[in-house]
Amino acid sequence: MNHEPLLIGIDAGGTSTRAVLADRRGTCLGYGVGGRGNPISAGADRAADGVLDAIEAALAASGASLSSVEVVVAAMAGMRAAGSDAWLKDRLVAKGFTGRLVFESDLLATYFSGAAAPFGYAMVSGTGACVIRVEDGRITGAGDGLGWLLGDRGSGFWIGHAIARAAVQDLDRTGPRTGLTDRVLAHYGLERTTVYEDGRQQELEELVGMLYSHPPIELAGLAPMAFEESDAIALGILAEAGEHLADTLSAVLTGPGPLVVGGSVLARSGPVRDAFIARLGAAADGLQLNPVGDGATGAAVLALRAAGIPPEETIRARLADTVAALR
Amino acid sequence: MNHEPLLIGIDAGGTSTRAVLADRRGTCLGYGVGGRGNPISAGADRAADGVLDAIEAALAASGASLSSVEVVVAAMAGMRAAGSDAWLKDRLVAKGFTGRLVFESDLLATYFSGAAAPFGYAMVSGTGACVIRVEDGRITGAGDGLGWLLGDRGSGFWIGHAIARAAVQDLDRTGPRTGLTDRVLAHYGLERTTVYEDGRQQELEELVGMLYSHPPIELAGLAPMAFEESDAIALGILAEAGEHLADTLSAVLTGPGPLVVGGSVLARSGPVRDAFIARLGAAADGLQLNPVGDGATGAAVLALRAAGIPPEETIRARLADTVAALR
Repeated sequence: MNHEPLLIGIDAGGTSTRAVLADRRGTCLGYGVGGRGNPISAGADRAADGVLDAIEAALAASGASLSSVEVVVAAMAGMRAAGSDAWLKDRLVAKGFTGRLVFESDLLATYFSGAAAPFGYAMVSGTGACVIRVEDGRITGAGDGLGWLLGDRGSGFWIGHAIARAAVQDLDRTGPRTGLTDRVLAHYGLERTTVYEDGRQQELEELVGMLYSHPPIELAGLAPMAFEESDAIALGILAEAGEHLADTLSAVLTGPGPLVVGGSVLARSGPVRDAFIARLGAAADGLQLNPVGDGATGAAVLALRAAGIPPEETIRARLADTVAALR
Repeated sequence: MNHEPLLIGIDAGGTSTRAVLADRRGTCLGYGVGGRGNPISAGADRAADGVLDAIEAALAASGASLSSVEVVVAAMAGMRAAGSDAWLKDRLVAKGFTGRLVFESDLLATYFSGAAAPFGYAMVSGTGACVIRVEDGRITGAGDGLGWLLGDRGSGFWIGHAIARAAVQDLDRTGPRTGLTDRVLAHYGLERTTVYEDGRQQELEELVGMLYSHPPIELAGLAPMAFEESDAIALGILAEAGEHLADTLSAVLTGPGPLVVGGSVLARSGPVRDAFIARLGAAADGLQLNPVGDGATGAAVLALRAAGIPPEETIRARLADTVAALR
């Protein structure tokens, strides 16, 4: 058993939650995963369950107890401005926790997963899309993250939405033909017909009905089709996504630095990344792109910081390596 | 009392229903208004109430009874393909109706409100946007009408959505400044602040929260702001709306003819109309734009047609004049 004070970083998302138990040197001693951890989307009780499950899994792996934890940093969207921490604090205290609970931005955790420098940027394009500028280790600028209806330009939702619109516009001939259409029809179990009613094909009516019968956000699930199809329409959607992400970054860009990239859209090389770099032009030269899987390492960096240990590259790298070894 | 067989045309919409009682010469003998009349959006019972209320108001004005009505044509969206007419037929029969009930497209009723020619086009841009091509008095082509999530490009929803996005992008500096922003903030009772949290102004967070707390379709209510504001962003939104409507029309355009225009977006002269005409280019020369208020007159034209009296301009004009006199 390790009796020095320990630290826990929580990276809580809309679908799952990760907990990293670390010592003050930046060695990950335990890693655990739980369910949904954001009380805004999951509700307080369910979110607390998700966080506690992740913490208990991380503790179990190391044999430590919550009473030896000095600081818990919970990185999650929208909780810094929220008033009460009782939904989580009470549950931790009931398990023997006597330390401090601090909320941080999930985007700042993404940043510190890939960088330790006090100045830089983090950009996430997964289901949604957003960017932050970090100065002196704090968020001083933010762009997009406005959700599927108002923004998230260049996100997985944005790409999936563009695919759905391209398919229906192909079918009703207000848009060009594209190989995406057959992929979308197949996704919903529909086939092309020659049946027309009031000037419109039957499969278009059926597809429209299908698309409106699901929550809009589920269109994000169509996004992979744009990477699988290689016609001009699919490539155009991906290039436009990359340009949107570049424009979002440009709104907070004030100088060179690391650019930590989260989410799958911009993580891999290809049409989105190419258009992103091209749109940024000379500004891209000053950025060091660093894709990360999630904010788990960064949440632990923030936990160390809350305990008085400032972010340094050696510590971040040790956390990243030792977290990776336990996954 | 008039004992010759009478005809009724119903123009049923998502918010109200109009009934025109006419004789075979095309004279409107009674006009009535009821509530929501489309069973797809309002439910069968409520829609039947809306249609019956409109019919009874039209009959009461003339002193006629439903037993003297030969044909009822009910023009409404999406009911031609629907199987059963019992939801309405049974209610009419219970009131003494012994004639025929025929469903027609609401867009075809819009067309015949403004034209009697067998070939032409009808374009509606209200909350939604769609176009039809009419040949031999039947719909042979359709464009858009794909709803707020997938299409309706150039509609009131499309304009309101663009306004909301322009405002949030102004506030988060991913877009240009615009006078629309203060209008949108005022609409939701919000004021500009200098309070920042994680790089984002408080009023932006509040506005985003407001916009997501209402059904997306209500963004159509913001559309008038684009006509009231005259900065480059507002004018750009209106011009793009006009171009989208032109592109939608172009998808079904095969030759010159009347273009009957429904809905408020394209009805008046101004930036939308100017961009619409400019985008159509030479094709606009062959179109006679004819704005109409609704499909009431056209539903009566369709009722006469169902009784064996083909559409003619003298009949359409008499119906339009005598309907207008009774409103």
